[in-house]
Amino acid sequence: MKNKIQKAYIAGFLDGDGSIYVRLKPNSTYKYGFQVAPYVVLFQSQKSQKDFEKICSLIGLGYLRIRKDGILEYIISRKKAIYSFLKIVKPFVILKKEQINLTLKILNKKESVKNKNDFQKIMNLIDRFRKLNYSKKRKKHTITP
Amino acid sequence: MKNKIQKAYIAGFLDGDGSIYVRLKPNSTYKYGFQVAPYVVLFQSQKSQKDFEKICSLIGLGYLRIRKDGILEYIISRKKAIYSFLKIVKPFVILKKEQINLTLKILNKKESVKNKNDFQKIMNLIDRFRKLNYSKKRKKHTITP
Repeated sequence: MKNKIQKAYIAGFLDGDGSIYVRLKPNSTYKYGFQVAPYVVLFQSQKSQKDFEKICSLIGLGYLRIRKDGILEYIISRKKAIYSFLKIVKPFVILKKEQINLTLKILNKKESVKNKNDFQKIMNLIDRFRKLNYSKKRKKHTITP
Repeated sequence: MKNKIQKAYIAGFLDGDGSIYVRLKPNSTYKYGFQVAPYVVLFQSQKSQKDFEKICSLIGLGYLRIRKDGILEYIISRKKAIYSFLKIVKPFVILKKEQINLTLKILNKKESVKNKNDFQKIMNLIDRFRKLNYSKKRKKHTITP
């Protein structure tokens, strides 16, 4: 994304058809039993694959995958890439400002987790995505003692 | 839409979550039995109504309605408004260029319809949206003699 016009286009695309969220992935090799996994995803039907690839290469921070149902997903999941992407689009985004701020807050807080209580606070922040993105699937999380 | 940044944002939003198409609405008061009805629609969940209204007022060419399933639709359907909108976003659109060109072609051709044969050509152009937007519902149209 070289200029403001491209950045504004991507921000519009993200507001229209994108998703920003942080997942808690159960993983017993992690200290508190969960991996904190942030995602930015853009969707598109396979019909527009060529043009969608243009958009993805404008961004250049993630990877493309094809879901079983034929939907293309451009996924940004590396922490550094998410930081870069969110900083770039934030000034232009209208609908997903809260998701951006919440994700940045979680990533920042994650750096300074010292104990179970700190981690529980992060889990509570992650639970807020339920309200923002209204997924009925996502559960409320607590550390199992 | 005052500047290029807003136009690019709207183009991105349209590519992500918008729809451009022309419908043939059966209507016996029209000479060839159909009204040629062009549409540009942007979608959004009711959850983001306030921010979505900001986007709609940036555009200022259509009207907002709430579907029974709770989805918001911003609909541009007046011919003049569609012309204005498509000309504004066209330089910035990546995915829906074909839909824009096809709509403009149909609207232009419509001006000079002289006979049944001319109208059938427009119907054939309209049928191309099926391929572009892959709706399974849309039927192939012919003038019933």
